[in-house]
Amino acid sequence: MKRLYILAALLLMVSTIQAQQAIFERHDTRSPEFNSDGTVTLRIKAPEAKKVGIIGDCVENGRGEMTNQDGVWTYTTKVLPPELYSYRFYVDGVETQDAGNIERSRDVRSFMSTFIISREEGDCGYLYQNHNVEHGDVAHVWYDSPTLGMKRRMSIYTPPGYDKGKAYPVLYLLHGAGGDEEAWLTLGRTAQIMDNLIALGKAKPMIVVTPNGNASDDAGPLETGLARKDRPKASYEESFQDIMNYVKDHYKIKKGPDNTAVCGLSMGGGHTFRISMLNPGTFGYMGLFSAAVRLEWNSQKNLEQQFESNQKAAEQMKALFAAKPHLYWIAIGKDDFLFQQNAELRQYLDKMQYPYEYYESEGGHIWRNWRIYLSMFAPRLF
Amino acid sequence: MKRLYILAALLLMVSTIQAQQAIFERHDTRSPEFNSDGTVTLRIKAPEAKKVGIIGDCVENGRGEMTNQDGVWTYTTKVLPPELYSYRFYVDGVETQDAGNIERSRDVRSFMSTFIISREEGDCGYLYQNHNVEHGDVAHVWYDSPTLGMKRRMSIYTPPGYDKGKAYPVLYLLHGAGGDEEAWLTLGRTAQIMDNLIALGKAKPMIVVTPNGNASDDAGPLETGLARKDRPKASYEESFQDIMNYVKDHYKIKKGPDNTAVCGLSMGGGHTFRISMLNPGTFGYMGLFSAAVRLEWNSQKNLEQQFESNQKAAEQMKALFAAKPHLYWIAIGKDDFLFQQNAELRQYLDKMQYPYEYYESEGGHIWRNWRIYLSMFAPRLF
Repeated sequence: MKRLYILAALLLMVSTIQAQQAIFERHDTRSPEFNSDGTVTLRIKAPEAKKVGIIGDCVENGRGEMTNQDGVWTYTTKVLPPELYSYRFYVDGVETQDAGNIERSRDVRSFMSTFIISREEGDCGYLYQNHNVEHGDVAHVWYDSPTLGMKRRMSIYTPPGYDKGKAYPVLYLLHGAGGDEEAWLTLGRTAQIMDNLIALGKAKPMIVVTPNGNASDDAGPLETGLARKDRPKASYEESFQDIMNYVKDHYKIKKGPDNTAVCGLSMGGGHTFRISMLNPGTFGYMGLFSAAVRLEWNSQKNLEQQFESNQKAAEQMKALFAAKPHLYWIAIGKDDFLFQQNAELRQYLDKMQYPYEYYESEGGHIWRNWRIYLSMFAPRLF
Repeated sequence: MKRLYILAALLLMVSTIQAQQAIFERHDTRSPEFNSDGTVTLRIKAPEAKKVGIIGDCVENGRGEMTNQDGVWTYTTKVLPPELYSYRFYVDGVETQDAGNIERSRDVRSFMSTFIISREEGDCGYLYQNHNVEHGDVAHVWYDSPTLGMKRRMSIYTPPGYDKGKAYPVLYLLHGAGGDEEAWLTLGRTAQIMDNLIALGKAKPMIVVTPNGNASDDAGPLETGLARKDRPKASYEESFQDIMNYVKDHYKIKKGPDNTAVCGLSMGGGHTFRISMLNPGTFGYMGLFSAAVRLEWNSQKNLEQQFESNQKAAEQMKALFAAKPHLYWIAIGKDDFLFQQNAELRQYLDKMQYPYEYYESEGGHIWRNWRIYLSMFAPRLF
């Protein structure tokens, strides 16, 4: 109560003061509004606008027009199934977020307003929310990467009970091109997914490591240092051992392939593909989510032909499967623009009789799929 | 290089695909542009707009008009002294951030684009940037608060070298009304300030704890659980011992008032005021930054009269100073709307001959001042 009073008093005082102290703002346009029929109404006040558009995965066909009602533009969704939804407005062509919605996430260089729909315990929206369950902690640490010649930042989720002294298995969870060490924690909702899967008894408690996968950067925006002027001394994949060394030295972990997994989305799926080849026998579980899987980036050759002309890579792949991993899991959406690359990977694995599992979902190269893939992959581990 | 190639390839592919996979976006409008004369040019593309305004602390008098050049609106600042600057655009009255600038921070319910100006080592802009120095880590943990009857989230900075096993002193750093456990880390730049002050030899290595100061919440946006329906069982100030217990049990800390400090801004300054009264002898150092210092919130009485009619509070204040703390530090801006409250506090301390130090800055109730106050207070500790 006291806080509400202070806040109200400050709002009152500040409303009469200029920008110098205007740290409190009220938005009287209610958005999002969760309607009892399962639809959601989104609003933006723009009395001067000629046209307001909306894009997002809560919008039919991805984009739509909003309707002007006395200067407040509205869009009401269809009945939405459980999910984390993202959206953004375009006011006469200029992008903006929902001023009434405090929940925003960054994806690469773009910001979206978000909300979560959940209808019952255990649905995917439920997995992405915080509930009154035991929570793990998330540390943002800096590790030394001698291979890349720089200090670099990564995020580490430790499960509930970690502070009691037991050792836990480790999942390395890799982001896509343009993402960073925050991506899996923000739009990826990793801490919430892990907390909830563990609380529901669907996943074993584990440490989840989400490094920064850009060899030329030290950290994501707001945390990054001055731009480096020299090119990285090595690839991210080659430097991955530095990450594993830090984790081994600073966390109580269970060791060996039975207790070590790696997965990633898009570029991070490509990293998973190559890191597991560089380190056969290290990972008992691998997950390629909408993965960029190529050995040669400019090549017209299919993946099988690429392996044929790259004996070293073929040997690495052979060694990877000779170590008899528990799971090599490929997941991709029917509409993903990397679908063909993954079809070629499956053809190669089939031809070589390397065992894998495949999950094909609806949709494309989107966070919705990656959250679902993580929610399916984590319960298979350890 | 490989990453750049992947990113370029994805951009190319995605540009022909619809919103389903449009996770990569390019903004061809360069903003902010740091000009060689020390000014900064900000831009937004809005060909349809009739008028575009800008607010922010990089703008003269806090707000200004932008100029249309072929649909791209620009504003060029004066030569800017070192600082972290925040700004936002209003396109025909609708707020938006700078699409060309990936750096944004949230303050209470509002989002601002930000940039940092630094001209030399050790200036305040330098303190807010990441440099090639040893970095501390930041953990986001959940602690149990029996006093409030809930699990709650807080952030904990540990200094470089913490992993070597030594114990460190602790600063509790409290946010303002509407803020949360992220506020001091984002706009407050606490991790950068501490890293840099420690690297420059200006502050001792210390643990910095930034809890969530809202007794009715468990965590900030995106991390919060479902809204609680019952009122908190106790005040935040009364629950503060739960935070100190967690820190004591989970971190290697040096104990006693010589090794324990508390400070905070606005509401957090008020928390500092009351938490230190509730726990005389616990904190050797106290910092009140633009603090909300009242004993009675609805009262017309000045603070001295409030103490006169509240013998318990007067006794607590007496006990606080009887314990001979090293520093009771009051800092406020000349234009702060809480200036009068702090003048009353000083009058009371003067009258009672309780020793304190006072720092009066320019400006109002703004983050610029709070970052500077932290940069001044931290070097005085331990």
